[in-house]
Amino acid sequence: MKSTSKKTVKKNPAKKASRKPIILVTNDDGITAPGLRNLAEVMKKFAEVIVVAPDSPQSAMGHAITINKPLRLDKVNVFDGIESWQCSGTPVDCVKLAVNKILKRKPDLCVSGVNHGSNSSINVIYSGTMSAAMEGAIEGIPSIGFSLLDFSLDADFTAARFFIEKIVKNILKIGLPEYSLLNVNIPKLKLSKIKGIKICRQAHAKWKEEFDERCDPNNRKYYWLTGKFVNLDSGQDTDEWALANGYVSVVPVQFDFTAHQAIPHLNTIDWNG
Amino acid sequence: MKSTSKKTVKKNPAKKASRKPIILVTNDDGITAPGLRNLAEVMKKFAEVIVVAPDSPQSAMGHAITINKPLRLDKVNVFDGIESWQCSGTPVDCVKLAVNKILKRKPDLCVSGVNHGSNSSINVIYSGTMSAAMEGAIEGIPSIGFSLLDFSLDADFTAARFFIEKIVKNILKIGLPEYSLLNVNIPKLKLSKIKGIKICRQAHAKWKEEFDERCDPNNRKYYWLTGKFVNLDSGQDTDEWALANGYVSVVPVQFDFTAHQAIPHLNTIDWNG
Repeated sequence: MKSTSKKTVKKNPAKKASRKPIILVTNDDGITAPGLRNLAEVMKKFAEVIVVAPDSPQSAMGHAITINKPLRLDKVNVFDGIESWQCSGTPVDCVKLAVNKILKRKPDLCVSGVNHGSNSSINVIYSGTMSAAMEGAIEGIPSIGFSLLDFSLDADFTAARFFIEKIVKNILKIGLPEYSLLNVNIPKLKLSKIKGIKICRQAHAKWKEEFDERCDPNNRKYYWLTGKFVNLDSGQDTDEWALANGYVSVVPVQFDFTAHQAIPHLNTIDWNG
Repeated sequence: MKSTSKKTVKKNPAKKASRKPIILVTNDDGITAPGLRNLAEVMKKFAEVIVVAPDSPQSAMGHAITINKPLRLDKVNVFDGIESWQCSGTPVDCVKLAVNKILKRKPDLCVSGVNHGSNSSINVIYSGTMSAAMEGAIEGIPSIGFSLLDFSLDADFTAARFFIEKIVKNILKIGLPEYSLLNVNIPKLKLSKIKGIKICRQAHAKWKEEFDERCDPNNRKYYWLTGKFVNLDSGQDTDEWALANGYVSVVPVQFDFTAHQAIPHLNTIDWNG
């Protein structure tokens, strides 16, 4: 996409037409996850909410879609007064089905989460939560992924709910730059300890894998993927820095993956010689 | 990551030490796909080749990794004189297992493909082939994903092999800018009809989904994901333009997903007010 078009700001169509906004809510932890319930409840303050979420946990599914088997989509009654659907596919499948089979018009916002665990820095690439939000953005819907740095199913969502409300209120009013979405991570801290919201870039980090090698009863090896997160970035403008220093991190994310800065170097090669 | 560090060019360590290069070969169509065989055969001209590929087709798996079930990894004898392994996981799992459990040192190159079908423009996001190459790049390995615009298992790889050899020769010599990988797509044309190699940016495009709705014998609905590719970008510097005009497209890709250009706009909002 051209850099000029990137600067266009998408205003909220709901506001213009004075109609009640519609917000699509999804996640990757599945329809029963407390994070999803908390997100749907906060969204009800702003809009008509429709939940379309996986029927089972789909963490670390990245941008996977289901093309080799059929998808199931069933209406369920799990949230009071909120239209809800469960889908047998991935988080990205949920967004595609919602847009194409459930929603009567393009929603004003797509929110994904609240993920149980961080999606900061390189995790954005593996995350089903963020991929669902990215699919929303590809569909032209202002989209946000929310994650809380607490894996527990008993996590305290008080601070998360406070900041989610603040962020959604702003984005419904001001919109998002075209072709971008937000990756929001909330530290595991009491509300009073959080210093505020910080706009950041994705830290340069990676996972150092450590495969746990075991033997099954037939003496055949198998492996569990485990690993250690390594932050390779000392910048103070990164999401990792913000989270480590008590801020909610907000990273604008794009789905143009072109390494534009690498093009001049590649053009120095005589490829066709 | 900082923009200054992006300009550093990674020279090929194999050349410096005058040792035989090692090339890791993977794909998403699975260990038996003709595209993988063709890629491994071309790589044998340059290096010691090690193949680690999924034991079944893993198309459209994106950057999914396997965290909720164990992984199998078995040595197989499918390519003459090439060490080969099949893995029960995703393309990204294959790269992680190769780096951590199979390879004795970091390989000089990681190549993924040849994919049976295009991975141009927005397809980079859904593609298991490209995600495997991206995982290689995250591991600090110069990495390239190759795709041929022909879904057929009987596809003619003559032109693909010619251009793959040309590109790999150059990259082993010159290296790749840090934190970037290449997305190479080859048109379905005879070698004599291909005009050459073109460095491009990712076209702005999307899939217009069309779910095929059916009923099972119990009268329950199910859906098959189908869709139509829509190019929304008229630029002549895109991969879509290059492919439509008879060129091999080469797009440098990055795994910093930050929409850096959106940061100033987001900083105009009084988030903490």
